[in-house]
Amino acid sequence: MKVKDIGEFGLIDRITKRSKDKKILVGIGDDAAIYGTEKDFQVLTTDCLVEGDHFRRDWFNSTQIGMKAIEINVSDIAAMGALPKYILVSMALPKDLDVEFVDGLYEGMWKTCDKYGIEIIGGNMTHSEKILISITLTGEVDNKNLCLRSGAKPGDYILVSGHLGNGRAGLRLFQKGIKGFEKVRKYYLEPNAQLKTALKISPFINSMIDVSDGLAPEISHICKQSKCGAMIYKDKIPISEEVRTVATKLGDNEFDYALFGGEDFELVYTVSKENIDKVNGFLVGEIIKNKKISLFFNGEEKAIEEKGYDHFSRGI
Amino acid sequence: MKVKDIGEFGLIDRITKRSKDKKILVGIGDDAAIYGTEKDFQVLTTDCLVEGDHFRRDWFNSTQIGMKAIEINVSDIAAMGALPKYILVSMALPKDLDVEFVDGLYEGMWKTCDKYGIEIIGGNMTHSEKILISITLTGEVDNKNLCLRSGAKPGDYILVSGHLGNGRAGLRLFQKGIKGFEKVRKYYLEPNAQLKTALKISPFINSMIDVSDGLAPEISHICKQSKCGAMIYKDKIPISEEVRTVATKLGDNEFDYALFGGEDFELVYTVSKENIDKVNGFLVGEIIKNKKISLFFNGEEKAIEEKGYDHFSRGI
Repeated sequence: MKVKDIGEFGLIDRITKRSKDKKILVGIGDDAAIYGTEKDFQVLTTDCLVEGDHFRRDWFNSTQIGMKAIEINVSDIAAMGALPKYILVSMALPKDLDVEFVDGLYEGMWKTCDKYGIEIIGGNMTHSEKILISITLTGEVDNKNLCLRSGAKPGDYILVSGHLGNGRAGLRLFQKGIKGFEKVRKYYLEPNAQLKTALKISPFINSMIDVSDGLAPEISHICKQSKCGAMIYKDKIPISEEVRTVATKLGDNEFDYALFGGEDFELVYTVSKENIDKVNGFLVGEIIKNKKISLFFNGEEKAIEEKGYDHFSRGI
Repeated sequence: MKVKDIGEFGLIDRITKRSKDKKILVGIGDDAAIYGTEKDFQVLTTDCLVEGDHFRRDWFNSTQIGMKAIEINVSDIAAMGALPKYILVSMALPKDLDVEFVDGLYEGMWKTCDKYGIEIIGGNMTHSEKILISITLTGEVDNKNLCLRSGAKPGDYILVSGHLGNGRAGLRLFQKGIKGFEKVRKYYLEPNAQLKTALKISPFINSMIDVSDGLAPEISHICKQSKCGAMIYKDKIPISEEVRTVATKLGDNEFDYALFGGEDFELVYTVSKENIDKVNGFLVGEIIKNKKISLFFNGEEKAIEEKGYDHFSRGI
């Protein structure tokens, strides 16, 4: 059997072993790992950008690549309700890459780290044929703000922090070589982690995850770990007019962008009816007892197929 | 200017900015980064193995690759006098890789993690054309055991924990397709971090580093950060009989293996004359005030050229 047959999530499952260490609160299977110290929790996440798979040098400039490498990791820390702190940068670079390009990468990283008050404290440099950037980000969170995928409860409302489908729409514009649509294009090249929102809502919500792989698989992660199901109201999914236009132009379905596209970096979270007034966001569904995930539209309920962004079956 | 012209260390220098955060004790420029909590220090390191650059699938089996990925990171944590704790595994894999190969990687990682009491707490999986394994390892150390590169003092003895040159000798055997020399070959394929030794000696020594790039550049790192120099006694450098035989057979110089070869994963440390009886190891030199690094042999003193393992100028 090949790696592409088993897929990203199957491979991650294979490395999962139940941890014996009582100080580990969340191991493999959330946006970031968490381990406890006496007073608070340390959060740790890692994410990797590979040239040709996550970015192309003819689409992104080097500063944008550096920025994106940091933002996607901040997004994972934000999804835990945690504050990002320290970063390690591990890079593999081609021998013939211009040093100015590397300077651009660093400039992008510094800029984004400064924005969030993150310090670059270490790293590692080696050679490879394609550019590869692996980031490790630490975070801190106290007990009352910690948000896990496993905390959703039947009756919770499901909300998203912003419009969805931009990431995939932007990617499609580049793939098809279509000009214009500057807002969508910029969203794809320069995504922003929703840290401010995450820190604001984290004391009031039951579960959270970031939308790196599409709304449907993210809600599915929450449901699996919370042992429940979800009903998503299709016509409540926030999709911008520009994304709808891109989808129409390319003969795509804008709901496919939002539900199964990747790289939106918005937040999905669930909140009890009592706390709903304490948070902002777009209400897109409800958590239910029954362990299935359905899409509700035009008075009809339809089960959602399991398809999300899998790095072994898709790519740029 | 190209990346290969500026080299690994030049590139790392370019990302170095002095940290403003008082909780960061050591940032970029030691084996691992350190930041303080109330009671003790958290240590964080990251290292990356790239197929074709750090291993080849026709030389290593997958279990050995998994083991080595963990050992080289444990070596960095050990060199700080710290205890390794938690690991994140970030991998990029080709689509057509056999799943059995990935299982072998995991088996090697688990085996080595179990040996050191390390827990795998998270990670990330993506696609790339060549196998890439990026490991982040956390560690803990209290104040009295912490060993930095910057602590060496004139008059300190310089010691190494074991024989040197095995890593490079092993690599040369594979490069030249020479059979035999099983001990050297095994040392290259299955290196061991010297964690036990590190924890034992750390309360008594002034500085430490692991020999991943060769004895000369490692001592040079200590001297630069401790603002001093060193005299290395060439005939005291411990090199095994088998490594000498390999060097002779290949027309190489065994001292080049030890001084400038990579991947030995032994420890180099400096200790005051008062504490010399409290530690074991091979005495190979002395720290001096004068900021130069010399090799002493046959009554003659010779300056050591700066050449170490640079991933942009060499490789497998």
